Amino acid sequence: MERKLIETLKNYVGEKVLIKGWVHRVRRLKAITFVILRDRTGMVQCVVENSLMDLSGLKLESVISIEGEVKESNNTLNPFEILIEKVEIINEVKEELPIEINKKELEVNLDTMLNNRVLSLRQERKNAIFKIQGLIAQGFREFLIGEGFTEIFTPKIVAEGAEGGTEMFEVKYFENKAYLAQSPQFYKQMMVGAGYERVFEVGAVYRAEQHNTNRHLNEYVSMDFEMGFINNEEDIMIMEERLLKFILKKLEVEGEKYLKLLEIELPKIEGSIPRIRFIEAIEILKREYNKTDLEGDLDPEGEKLIYKYVKEKLGSELLFLTHYPRRKRPMYTMPCGEEETHSFDLLFRGLEITTGGQRIHDYNLLNENIKYKGLTPENYEGYTNTFKYGMPPHGGLAIGLERITAQLLNLTNVRETSLFPRDRTRLTP
Amino acid sequence: MERKLIETLKNYVGEKVLIKGWVHRVRRLKAITFVILRDRTGMVQCVVENSLMDLSGLKLESVISIEGEVKESNNTLNPFEILIEKVEIINEVKEELPIEINKKELEVNLDTMLNNRVLSLRQERKNAIFKIQGLIAQGFREFLIGEGFTEIFTPKIVAEGAEGGTEMFEVKYFENKAYLAQSPQFYKQMMVGAGYERVFEVGAVYRAEQHNTNRHLNEYVSMDFEMGFINNEEDIMIMEERLLKFILKKLEVEGEKYLKLLEIELPKIEGSIPRIRFIEAIEILKREYNKTDLEGDLDPEGEKLIYKYVKEKLGSELLFLTHYPRRKRPMYTMPCGEEETHSFDLLFRGLEITTGGQRIHDYNLLNENIKYKGLTPENYEGYTNTFKYGMPPHGGLAIGLERITAQLLNLTNVRETSLFPRDRTRLTP
Repeated sequence: MERKLIETLKNYVGEKVLIKGWVHRVRRLKAITFVILRDRTGMVQCVVENSLMDLSGLKLESVISIEGEVKESNNTLNPFEILIEKVEIINEVKEELPIEINKKELEVNLDTMLNNRVLSLRQERKNAIFKIQGLIAQGFREFLIGEGFTEIFTPKIVAEGAEGGTEMFEVKYFENKAYLAQSPQFYKQMMVGAGYERVFEVGAVYRAEQHNTNRHLNEYVSMDFEMGFINNEEDIMIMEERLLKFILKKLEVEGEKYLKLLEIELPKIEGSIPRIRFIEAIEILKREYNKTDLEGDLDPEGEKLIYKYVKEKLGSELLFLTHYPRRKRPMYTMPCGEEETHSFDLLFRGLEITTGGQRIHDYNLLNENIKYKGLTPENYEGYTNTFKYGMPPHGGLAIGLERITAQLLNLTNVRETSLFPRDRTRLTP
Repeated sequence: MERKLIETLKNYVGEKVLIKGWVHRVRRLKAITFVILRDRTGMVQCVVENSLMDLSGLKLESVISIEGEVKESNNTLNPFEILIEKVEIINEVKEELPIEINKKELEVNLDTMLNNRVLSLRQERKNAIFKIQGLIAQGFREFLIGEGFTEIFTPKIVAEGAEGGTEMFEVKYFENKAYLAQSPQFYKQMMVGAGYERVFEVGAVYRAEQHNTNRHLNEYVSMDFEMGFINNEEDIMIMEERLLKFILKKLEVEGEKYLKLLEIELPKIEGSIPRIRFIEAIEILKREYNKTDLEGDLDPEGEKLIYKYVKEKLGSELLFLTHYPRRKRPMYTMPCGEEETHSFDLLFRGLEITTGGQRIHDYNLLNENIKYKGLTPENYEGYTNTFKYGMPPHGGLAIGLERITAQLLNLTNVRETSLFPRDRTRLTP
């Protein structure tokens, strides 16, 4: 008999089926025993008379198959249940489970959860996080493919860094020293210039940052795009607004089951996301919250306060902070006057989830700006040479996949949205 | 005026349009000048009277915009052309181009091509390779999503290797030593056990192999899937057959333009791909080609000869070689008797593009097999512990994205299908 998935059982009421999965719960009453079986699509209650079969030895989380008839019923899981005719143990649990996973919430601390990742992910709410994450990544790609973007795969082993030489992991590359890429920045710009005009990549990036906060990972998934023939950074922000609306719509439709399980209400983006100039934001924080310790960038408290302000005054959970100071942005950022740049961050519920902007496309200006930043043009020739041979005006952005997942799902630590997080101290599992 | 893409110009005959792109060719005759402009969607001939405008200074590959009327015409590119009214230089080429890219073929050697990657990719046939590659990766994902697979992102910085400790790149991870992942093997198996049952990942993997051949890259994109509740490796091969048919269909439809440009005929998969047991293949090579130097695996010559055989006898360009010897396969491979395994390779036009098979799901058998391979079970506890808590029978495979692209497009060196290849000596651009 062919295995049926639990979510399809409603089509087989009155028929005999074979299902396979994990033993989620066993409850033996006086005359009958209930077994709840779980597969990747859901759970179902199965029942047998104790006089027919003794299932008291069944261990939680063992992999089993059950044959039986689907019958209408009235239980909390489904409007049907299975009358067990046969049980087969496919792979039995060998040891007592280190954590309890058949509750509505997983009641363990973060470290225990991550140390027992395979088991903790069987808990349905933890499991749902990565169903949502997959949909976000797919939504990112689908939307951009529809907009004429080409998917690219660029190397993560690089000879030099895009954001300056610090905070990079060193790799022994045969007899040479190499680094892990901090971002695909240079490569995606080069691919705009290679004639693709619009490119995207979803891939790992690496930051050897020493600090160990709930918003940082040393390896994370960056969703990048870059597009040519723009007027300025406004075109990038408009593209991101449309992209986010597309992703939210996809989650609403395809992720409904998981959002419900996680009790999540998605943010609404009506019209466009508010834009505030960086220096205005500094003014607002000073005026409204008496916050005066900011210099060139917002700290986490500043991000939270400006969120509070925008939420209260404009009713938005998202905010574009624009025109970041030139001295704080990387050398490839298009200047806007002497002090500012054509760049932006997107804050979502008080956390930066995107950095983007227009890039310099003029060879001479690029070299000048490299010097302005105190860097040496010769070190960047492999990148800057590109700009000698016809580069259109362009810009782009990067969205952190773990961060946007965390913010959408109201999770306070970004580690919860990485299957196997890498941080200052965590290198396993 | 809003920029129009060249492929949409057929809709604007008789109208005035604005187009932007790169100067592909300039030809000045006595009375008129032709400019061919190229954007990401194609090329168009533009024409102006010399008495109206002098375009002789226009440099090849400069980025320009052209305004003018779309008129019916009879040229090799399109059934229309543009009567130039205005030309604006957006970004001028600063230096003589190091390679010529406006010919039908790019006539430079591999190193020159890779050293000038941004320019060489503007050549339309080189450009098309990565359009096809993007479609292959998207086809892989689309098919598997339709089959209930979950997309996962697993770490590439790891503490230990899946295929044994050799041939791994070492990373300095703060005060620890770490490695770049050779494959997501352990993680994808763990995610099957985490209840996702079916998972896939498209991501970079790393092999610190010393040899520098036309079929090896030190960093490449691996398209992996893993699925639970299988009977044996046959389920994986059937899934791959359906997957490949899906990808080929997608290329036929969405990649038509690029395949035509590259003069490529896609292989046909009718019914199922032939399967030959590994030891039979060894026998065939001995009998038919007097090849007797093989031991446990096919060498490149052996792969080419068995392809020749299968092509001639069975009319197939694809071949599953099954039941590889146990002593040659990694410790996680499900044994089949004393000598063989439930594993396979897929050869496509004489090159291995997939390795797959059933994995061991029983905790005790896995530890025995680790010992059989001469390895130490204690070193793999982070992985093997998973198997104590209920693991379904499962298997999977990995397809090398650059290799399948190269074989589909009849390219002899896999470096041609990597935007920025990393090999024994190449670390830039």
